[in-house]
Amino acid sequence: MEKEGRISCSSYEIGERADILDTKVRKDLSSFGQFGIAGRGYKIKNLKKKIEEIIGKDSIWKIAVIGVGNLGTALLKYPGFKEECCKIVLAFDSDPQKIGKIIDSVPIYDIESIEREIRKNNLKIGIIATPSEEAQNVVNRLIKSGIKALLNFAPVSLSVPDDIKIIDIDLTARLEALAYYLTHK
Amino acid sequence: MEKEGRISCSSYEIGERADILDTKVRKDLSSFGQFGIAGRGYKIKNLKKKIEEIIGKDSIWKIAVIGVGNLGTALLKYPGFKEECCKIVLAFDSDPQKIGKIIDSVPIYDIESIEREIRKNNLKIGIIATPSEEAQNVVNRLIKSGIKALLNFAPVSLSVPDDIKIIDIDLTARLEALAYYLTHK
Repeated sequence: MEKEGRISCSSYEIGERADILDTKVRKDLSSFGQFGIAGRGYKIKNLKKKIEEIIGKDSIWKIAVIGVGNLGTALLKYPGFKEECCKIVLAFDSDPQKIGKIIDSVPIYDIESIEREIRKNNLKIGIIATPSEEAQNVVNRLIKSGIKALLNFAPVSLSVPDDIKIIDIDLTARLEALAYYLTHK
Repeated sequence: MEKEGRISCSSYEIGERADILDTKVRKDLSSFGQFGIAGRGYKIKNLKKKIEEIIGKDSIWKIAVIGVGNLGTALLKYPGFKEECCKIVLAFDSDPQKIGKIIDSVPIYDIESIEREIRKNNLKIGIIATPSEEAQNVVNRLIKSGIKALLNFAPVSLSVPDDIKIIDIDLTARLEALAYYLTHK
């Protein structure tokens, strides 16, 4: 909305665009403080800044991608990350053909150097784009090196300690959700 | 669990593995009928079959991928789809170098032939893996050709009619969720 030149907006409009109820927009935002003015909505610029603070976007998180196959390469080039909170700064692979190369200004390191590089760069977020059979081993090594949060693209369930956050990007589950919709609509 | 040789399981175990509460497992399943026996849990084989019926996995959905860049190629090779409900059968791209090629037994067609091929193959599910600026145009053409459900990887919000289901795989939002977790833990 800011890009559209708008100054303020209602919770209803936010709900419309995010596909959630306006009551939920108001309830969720109110749990972080009072941002809007009753009957007049939210100042867009102010609200955006507050939300950025809430989700930690005022700091930039540096991220490592492990596995530079087709998916890993797509992630290094993913345009959605470019102006956001997160910046991929390192990638790892075991393929000697890839090690030492640079994709979209991200250097690819030997997977053997995970521990050293993650620690040296003090990274906290890792993205798993390895084959399934290597994913758990890689996750164990990342956690030992100080990684606290993981995005997992390998179609496999990974075990992590309770204090580590992992989000599975389970594409099969998403397609099953579409299949469910088509079966029942 | 079936692969582990297990015969039956409790809602608590399902909840543990799916990272949801056992009460929610029981409540969700009960809305489709009675599958378990109180105090004795679920027969795994039977439950799996029932869930497959519910989500429409007993039929195989044929899918088209639009855009065969790094991401599209990764999708064509994604091992998670291989034994599941959904099979990618067609891909489209505008690059003459790619048109006519076959990746993991999926033929790549000229994007100009979307309407003809989608209709001919009676496809209902499409995956958007194009650059953001082409995504809306591609979606419009897919819907005109009979596509009813979409998985969108382009980091852009797409408009679709109310009777079309679209799921955004918003990687930036997922990373922001991790950043939020790290900021507030």
